[in-house]
Parts: sequence; C-alpha cells; structure tokens
Amino acid sequence: LDAYRFTTIGFLSDFGLVDEFVGVCHGVIARIAPKARVIDITHGIGAHQVASGALALVSAVGYLPTAVHLAVVDPGVGSDRLGIVVQTREGSCLVGPDNGLLLPAAERLGGVAGCHRLENPALRAARVSPTFHGRDIFAPAAAHLALGVAPEDFGAPVRLDDLVAPAIPQAVATGGACRGVVVAVDRFGNLETTITPDLAASAGVRVGSLLALTVGDRALEAPFARTFSAVAAGEPVVIEDSRNLLAVCLNQASAAERLGVREGTPVVLAPVSAPLP
Amino acid sequence: LDAYRFTTIGFLSDFGLVDEFVGVCHGVIARIAPKARVIDITHGIGAHQVASGALALVSAVGYLPTAVHLAVVDPGVGSDRLGIVVQTREGSCLVGPDNGLLLPAAERLGGVAGCHRLENPALRAARVSPTFHGRDIFAPAAAHLALGVAPEDFGAPVRLDDLVAPAIPQAVATGGACRGVVVAVDRFGNLETTITPDLAASAGVRVGSLLALTVGDRALEAPFARTFSAVAAGEPVVIEDSRNLLAVCLNQASAAERLGVREGTPVVLAPVSAPLP
Amino acid sequence: LDAYRFTTIGFLSDFGLVDEFVGVCHGVIARIAPKARVIDITHGIGAHQVASGALALVSAVGYLPTAVHLAVVDPGVGSDRLGIVVQTREGSCLVGPDNGLLLPAAERLGGVAGCHRLENPALRAARVSPTFHGRDIFAPAAAHLALGVAPEDFGAPVRLDDLVAPAIPQAVATGGACRGVVVAVDRFGNLETTITPDLAASAGVRVGSLLALTVGDRALEAPFARTFSAVAAGEPVVIEDSRNLLAVCLNQASAAERLGVREGTPVVLAPVSAPLP
Repeated sequence: LDAYRFTTIGFLSDFGLVDEFVGVCHGVIARIAPKARVIDITHGIGAHQVASGALALVSAVGYLPTAVHLAVVDPGVGSDRLGIVVQTREGSCLVGPDNGLLLPAAERLGGVAGCHRLENPALRAARVSPTFHGRDIFAPAAAHLALGVAPEDFGAPVRLDDLVAPAIPQAVATGGACRGVVVAVDRFGNLETTITPDLAASAGVRVGSLLALTVGDRALEAPFARTFSAVAAGEPVVIEDSRNLLAVCLNQASAAERLGVREGTPVVLAPVSAPLP
Repeated sequence: LDAYRFTTIGFLSDFGLVDEFVGVCHGVIARIAPKARVIDITHGIGAHQVASGALALVSAVGYLPTAVHLAVVDPGVGSDRLGIVVQTREGSCLVGPDNGLLLPAAERLGGVAGCHRLENPALRAARVSPTFHGRDIFAPAAAHLALGVAPEDFGAPVRLDDLVAPAIPQAVATGGACRGVVVAVDRFGNLETTITPDLAASAGVRVGSLLALTVGDRALEAPFARTFSAVAAGEPVVIEDSRNLLAVCLNQASAAERLGVREGTPVVLAPVSAPLP
Repeated sequence: LDAYRFTTIGFLSDFGLVDEFVGVCHGVIARIAPKARVIDITHGIGAHQVASGALALVSAVGYLPTAVHLAVVDPGVGSDRLGIVVQTREGSCLVGPDNGLLLPAAERLGGVAGCHRLENPALRAARVSPTFHGRDIFAPAAAHLALGVAPEDFGAPVRLDDLVAPAIPQAVATGGACRGVVVAVDRFGNLETTITPDLAASAGVRVGSLLALTVGDRALEAPFARTFSAVAAGEPVVIEDSRNLLAVCLNQASAAERLGVREGTPVVLAPVSAPLP
C-alpha cells in the first residue's frame, strides 16, 4: 500500500444508487488498484446537472485526504468533449469530463498545476462504451493514478485556457441588493444560493439584519441569523450554511416544498433593517 | 491498525445520500483515522426524526462489531443541546447529540458505563459551523475515539439522570388490546409498530391468533403469522419483524400505500380468536 | 488477509438504503470476516423484482474481481424456497435464494460448477428470523465462504436441473420485427429493453437504421445511433447501452417520464430504412 501514490479515491457522480453503475465503477477500481479506498462523496447529483456537481465537489474536496477525485456528471458523453486529468498544486488529481465540473475544486485545492487528456488506450477498458465513460475511461484512469501512473502518461497536455470554464454561476451585488440563484436544494429543503457572505456584506447584509427576499415570484422577510433555531419552528431564516453560502431555510421544515422552488430559481436579497449595534 | 482502540465506526444519520454531507464526514474521519473502517448503518432516517433514528440504531448495533457508533439526527443543531460520547458496558462508544437518540442503543449494548461532553476544542474542527456538527464535532470525535483518545479527554462527565430521555415511545396493553404507533415504514411498505411480542402476549395475542386491527381510521382483520406467505398475495398479515416488533404487512404489496399510513399513526390490535391449540 | 479465499464480497439487494438492513448485513459480515471488502453493487432493485435484480447482477459481476456475490431479492422469504451457494467455473461464488436471481450471473461467469443448499446451522445465525434471511443466512454464508469454508460444508448438493430457471425474459425476432420488454428504467429515464444487438441484426437493424418503435401503446420513430448526441436535445434515439442491450432514450431527457413507461412494458422495433452503405 505504501507503494501507491494515492490511497484514497473520492468519487462523485450523477449515477444515483438505483442502478449498478456505481458498484461497477467500484469493481473496475478494485480490479486495477485493489488496495485503494474509495470514498463516495455523493452519487445523488441531479442527472446532467454539471453546476450542482461542481458545487458539491468543491464543497467536499477540502475535507478529504489528498486523493484522486473521480467526478462524472457528463451530459456530453459520447460527443467530442475531452476526458481529462487535472493536477492540483495541493497534490490531489481530478479525473472527469472537460465540462467545467472539475475546475472549481481544482481552485479550492491550490489551483491547476497541469492537465492532460485521457487518450492512452492502454489505460482504459479494451472496449469503450459510447455511453459509460465512467466505467471504461474515468474509473480506470483514477485507479491507475492511484497506482502511480503519471498524468502525462495518459495523453497530450491541455492548456488551462482551452478548458471549458467553471460551471458554477456567480452572484452579483447591485443597487443595494444581492442577485443569485438557488444552486442546490438539500434533503431538508433548504435553498442554497450562490450568494457568499462577503458579497452579502458588500450590500450591507450581516448577521442580525432583517432581509427582504424574493425567491422566484414569492416575496418574504426573514432575519439573517447564525442558526435555524433563531426563529420559531416553521418560520423563515437566512443562514450561512455548511458550504459557506447563504441559504434560505425554514426552521425544521422544507422551504423548497413550501415555496415550490427548484434549482436555478432566481433569488434577490436586500437589507430591510441594519443589525442592532 | 492493532494500535487503534476501535477499527470499526458505525455511522447513522438523517443526511440522506443526495448531498455530499455523508462523503464529507467519511473524509474527515479518513484524515484523522485513515485505517478505521466506516460501516454506514443508514443515512435514510427521515429528516429530524429522532425516534426513527433511535430505533434504527438500536436495531443495528447488536449486529456490528464492537465499535464507535456515530449517530447524527439533530434538529437542535446550533442550539444549546449537548454533544456527548456515551460509553457502554459492552465496550462500544456512541457519539452524537444529547436528544434521546443514543440511549436505546446504549441499553442494547449493556447499559451506560459513562458519559462525557464533547467540548474539547483540540478534538474538533478549528472552525465549527453552527449547522453541521456532524462534520465539525461528531465525526472528528468518532475518529479520535477510534485512535484511542479516552472519553474523559473530550470534556466534563454528564450524569445519566441529566441526559435527555430515550426517544422511542412505549406501547401499552390495556383492556385486552395493545396500543402503539407506527414507528417505521420500510421500503416494502410494511408498517412497523412499537408493539413487542411480549406485550402482545400479555393481551392474549400469539402466533395463529386472528386479530382485529385499527390503523389510523381504518379497521381490518389479519392473522398473526410467522411469515408473509401465510396469506395470499395482497392480503394483510401481522408478523414479528426482523427488529422483533409487530408489523402490519400485505404479502408482496405495500400496506403503507394501500392504507395511506405514515410514521406516527396510532395502531390498536386485539385478538378476535385464539390460536388453535 | 492472504489466508482468505475471497477478499471481495459483492452485495446486491432490494433492501434500499432508507432502513438499516444493508448496514446490518455489512456488520454481520464484518464480525465473521473482518478483512473482507464489501462492494455494494446496488440496493436499489425494485422491491421483489427478481428479473430486474438478475439483470443488474449479470451486468455487474464481470467488472468486479473474483468474489463471493451476495444477492438478495427474495419475495419468497420464509416459504420453502431453497437458499443456495452456486460455484462458477470462473472461480466466484454466488449466494442467495433459489428463484432465478443467480443463474444469469453464473452463466456470465463461465457457468455453474456446483451448487449446494445453505442448511448447516453452524454457518448461520443462532436464531433465524423468518423475514430477514439476508441477515441471518445469506450474509453469514458469504462471510464464511470468504474465510475459506467450502461450499459443500453448507449442505446437500443441488442438481442444476432442479434449480428455478433464470429470471430474465428473452426477446424474440419474428416477421422482421424484434419483440421484447422494458427490463429496466435507469435514473436518466432511459428504457432498457431485453433486445440484444445480435437479435436486432437478425431483423435487419443496425447502427444507422431508422426504426419504427412501439413502446406500450405509443408509436414513434427514432434512429439507432452510437450515442445520445446523434439527435437534438429532447429527441428520441435507440442506442446499445452499457449493458449491451438496446435502449429507447431521449437525448438529455427522460423517456420514461415522457412516454409514461415502467418496467415490463412491451417494446416492438423494426427497421423503416436501412443504414446508408
């Protein structure tokens, strides 16, 4: 095991757990690198939701050991989009499609130190399915990287400028209000936005502020608080969530259900009153 | 690995598998205790359903090796509820919030041998999110316990009398009938009740009895049998399930769907006829 | 670990991940064979859907290392159906109920080299629940096989002719058309059929053909292409999927949702035009 370059493989996808796809990728990895340990980050990314996958990946990688991260949310499978391995300055590698999924995580891990195409036929399945590169190209690549194969052995280098741009949309602050979108709905129904605490602060929003919110076509007021329990059960509250993004929540209830909101819904947020001094 | 105090960490939560929360906790554990093996008991507990989580935990712990059990169903996160580590007489430790989630499992594992607060800042994340103690307090605690850190190193002792009471409601037998609630609905739609075989026996119910049931506002009759297949497909039957609780079922069909029942629905059960001698 | 006969246990079931059933089986295995590595193939098989389970298992086993495969989709639990261990010529073992679930995977692994009943009380739980043989009979058997217990130590041999037939229905080609059924719907809403490329070729269907399809009571036309992206977003296409079966798909959309189709729906497929030479 000491001979492995990476002992951990992080694995994120939109495969879900209903089919055998995730298990098959685990099997492919185990055949090539039997001693690597796979940590499933999540396989519950919405089908083909690259931005949602990029956000989950960037939120997770900092909490895992230095690793090969295998990430597959790949609506362009079978087209001419590239498969790539990205080396990060922190030492981890990211493997997946070139569609913006990997770059936010690479930034979180110190930035891109190099990138190569996955095109070496000796480092993929003998027969590559046009619909399942996770099994036939990406999982084998992750396993070979764990064993110590060098990124440059996979194929030609790719210039950073030639990579597809990061997939996470940026929020903006204009006219005293922050404008973003719901980027993720967690299982508790909390609505995570693209709005960061720093952006909110630039619009005069800080903990203790009462906020005027527009979520889609619904308007409401809620305090910006540290915890859900700052408001009564069922009441709305804005918090900084565990990914360090502002989230619109109901204490012990589902904001997504109550407001009928899905990923991509616009959110506008402005201070009604300043926090008490 | 021989130097680890626990090589297994059981992990139960209401995080679901849609988000990256479970994977992040695995990552946090792997960074602290890379050789510990995590067994995911389940992460499908209904959001904030402490009683349901307590029941799943007590049902599982006896089947795992001696372990640290990390359990997080935590509607009070960010409030002043305690985080605790409970030592059991059988040798396992339980880590999680003090809200009744852990105590039934502790009883199953021989009873409480000691309890301490999780308050040592050296044994948690440098920055603790007010909304994700699973990642920042409980997972690190479980990993440090696996490495051999003593429970008393985490904080002050807590007296058993000061802990929040166990979260599983008790069924009762009065007037020749058993009264309980549906405590869990499994994926097959079987309705697990809080009624134990012993309680049922005290009301004259035993295998072979024909029972009069009330489930919510629906009345039906069903035999108390050993297996589903004692009745025709689609017919109702009461069995002792794999958690040793009475469950209202339909053979090869979903009782939850047919009866429109959810967790918390009252169940009354009484013998119509005695079993044949 | 070198003393183990199998270091990998593949695990497939219809238990789902909402309850603690899967975690409990992992615990049972860890107590008997702590160094075995369990690869979860999937636990999302539809409740009691033996054919769907058989198909997922046969699709996965070739991608895993030589292993004990524990497979439990068991509508007849508690009846007199046998529990069995099947040895394959390739060297793997399959453990589960005798209901057709295991045989397609055994064929994929070189064919059946032997089969024995699981009836030795020393190799199962001391108390066997009539409703959870996964925990009490099958998981212990898989763990003991990993340790090196011989299949013949579990019980009497069973003749291949006495086993329940494989559970996957066969498609047919008649009158210039292929007739099969939807055997699985994946999370992207793709409709996998029982029709193989070879069967399709025998009816004159090959990549590039335009096809007339009937799916349930809906008629449509679609090309047989290599990849989804051969058609515009939202348009229908037939591809050979990653299990090497023909699938009816919409590019970047859900055919299951649009056509209102579930497993078991009949599919008829015939060429409208031949591919360009």
